[in-house]
Formats: sequence, C-alpha cells, structure tokens
Amino acid sequence: MKLYDLKTGTSTRRVRIFLAEKGVKLPTVEVDMLKGENKDPNYLAKNPMGTMPLLELDDGTQLAESVAICRYVEELHPEPPLFGTTPVERALVEMWNRRTELELLIPIMDHFVHSSAFYKERLTQMADVARRGHTRAQDRMHWLDGELAKRPFIAGDRYTIADITAQCALILGKNTGTPIPADSPHLARWFSEVSKRPTARA
Amino acid sequence: MKLYDLKTGTSTRRVRIFLAEKGVKLPTVEVDMLKGENKDPNYLAKNPMGTMPLLELDDGTQLAESVAICRYVEELHPEPPLFGTTPVERALVEMWNRRTELELLIPIMDHFVHSSAFYKERLTQMADVARRGHTRAQDRMHWLDGELAKRPFIAGDRYTIADITAQCALILGKNTGTPIPADSPHLARWFSEVSKRPTARA
Repeated sequence: MKLYDLKTGTSTRRVRIFLAEKGVKLPTVEVDMLKGENKDPNYLAKNPMGTMPLLELDDGTQLAESVAICRYVEELHPEPPLFGTTPVERALVEMWNRRTELELLIPIMDHFVHSSAFYKERLTQMADVARRGHTRAQDRMHWLDGELAKRPFIAGDRYTIADITAQCALILGKNTGTPIPADSPHLARWFSEVSKRPTARA
Repeated sequence: MKLYDLKTGTSTRRVRIFLAEKGVKLPTVEVDMLKGENKDPNYLAKNPMGTMPLLELDDGTQLAESVAICRYVEELHPEPPLFGTTPVERALVEMWNRRTELELLIPIMDHFVHSSAFYKERLTQMADVARRGHTRAQDRMHWLDGELAKRPFIAGDRYTIADITAQCALILGKNTGTPIPADSPHLARWFSEVSKRPTARA
C-alpha cells in the first residue's frame, strides 16, 4: 500500500491521526500541491478529484476520501476500534462523524477558502460564504460545547473517528480565524485533551 | 423503532429507498416542516439539527443522519448488501457514496436552496452559490457519465447506497433546474435503469 499525502491538508491529517492511533505506518508520497502535482495527469488518473489523501492498494485499486481510507484501515486493523463496536455504537459514531464534518469542518473550510489570501488566485472568493461559514461554525461550537458537558468524547465514552474529524476541523479553525469561542469551556477542555494525545501531531 | 420522515425530502428519500431495497417496513411519523414541527422543542430534543430522517430506537436512542440510519439497518438486515461485501468493496462504496454526496447532491442542493422561491423567506439566498452549485453539478455529471461508461452501477457491478444517493440527487436536480446534460448518455442510461426499480418511488 502507498499513501499519497499532503502535510498541510486537513483531510490528510484526519488519516494520519487515524493511522497513528492504530499504530500503522505506511509508505507515503508527499504530493506537492503548490507545484500542481495533484493536477498532473498521472495523479488525476489515480484520483480524478485531484485531492489527497489517496491510498493505493497493491492490486492497483485507488481509494480516495479520507473516511473511506480510515474504514479500510479499521477492517485490516480493528484495534483500537475507532468506528464503534456494536451496531448502535457504529451508527452513532457515523452520525457524529457526519455532524462534525457537515456542521463544523465544512463551514470552517468555507470561511478559510473564501477569505484567505492563499485561495485568492485559485477560485472566485465569495465574502458571503466566508461570513456564513464563520457564523455557522461558531454557532455549532456552542452547541458542541453543550454536548461535551455531558460526556468525555464527541460520540460517547471513547475516542473515535468523530473526535479526529472535530479535532482536525478545530485545528483548521484555530489557524484560519474561526477559533473556539471564549464561552465554550467544555469544548475547550475536550480540545485540550485530544491535543495532548501522542498522535495529535501526526 | 420509529422513523421520523418528510415525504418531500431528499435525505428521507435516501432512507426510504434503502429500506424498500431491504424489504423493511418501519412505523413512520410524518413531520410537517411547513408547520414548523421540526423546530418544535419536542423534536429538537430528539434531534437538535431539526432535520429528518430520524430513527428512534426502542431504548430511546435517537439516530439522525441518513447514512447512519442506513448503516444501522444494514447491520440488522444484511441482505441484500448495499454497503459492499469485502473490505475493499466496502471502502469503494464509501468513497463513491461520499463522492456522489459531495460532488453531486450538495451542489444541486446549493443551487436549489439559493435560487428557489420556497427558500426565499427562509434564509439569505446567495445567487453566486446557486450558480456555482449548478455549474459544479453539471461538470460532475459529465465526469460521472464517463465513469458509467465503464460499469453498470456507480460503485461497481452491484446496486449500492452510492446509487441511492446519486439517484436522489438527480431526482432533486431534475425537479429544481439541474437536469442531466443532454450529452451524457451513460448517466442517462443509469438513471433510467435505477428509476425503473420497484423501490424508486419509495
């Protein structure tokens, strides 16, 4: 197997933390997005979306999408379980992983992409989208704060892929102007705890 | 179990088709969104997102997010398999389900929400978001057309949840001004076939 990675990416970080939690090391190729390597025909033949991460299997199968890659790794290396251990738990982890992605990561990303200098030449930035993303993400952080008053981790008593997604979303938010609001102590407690895990810098 | 449904919704249709493919019938409560029942405190206590579908389990667990509900049903009723049958197949189905959602359903939904009269009073519509959604969805339909030249279904030789997602996205697109482009015969062939399944009107 070979992992096509992007050191600065958020989706790639999700996979790197997931692999580190599993204790799995994979041969890795860094794709230089600034040089446009992800839009190179050779790479697009592997993943027409031109995104990283991408996991190339030994039979040539190309697996894109971070959650698909994590799910595959979970099947090969079930311990520690990061997708839940019973049908209900697995469904709840899926629910929370999707909520953290749709309600947190995407709005934070919208704000970043539509307001940062980096993307200025790369797409048509829309100030309204940036503003809406920022407002929505902050609103959802308040909501998550209330949830994290009730339990240690996003989906329950155990660290799961939903925590990884939220953690990567909040790292992006912290670095791009959508930080945890000052009046969200439970979310801040959770973020501080997950950031201290040995895998957090993967 | 009890399913909170919305007859006209796209996410709810995904779950209804999934259940029909499994031959599973669930007691169902229609939530009247026009009357604001989904923003009622009783409903928000079950699902703070105020969205349907929602699956209420007998022990009181509330499962939101259509894919989480489908995954739970798949575990209780494995036949016919709609999430794949081997680790690689399950990962590919996940990848394709996410691609159809992110690349097709969300842009089509963006166009609808930001251009339709129905949403005019409900949120701040952004014409740029509508335009971008429309353009992106049409672009991705051309790409999917090329993919469907190579195989019968979205993720391979078998009908899966990725087909259900794409099918529901294209129903929404057809009804809201983002139809299949005229020069996409393979996508049109696939859509015609999945639309003839006995479950398509669920």
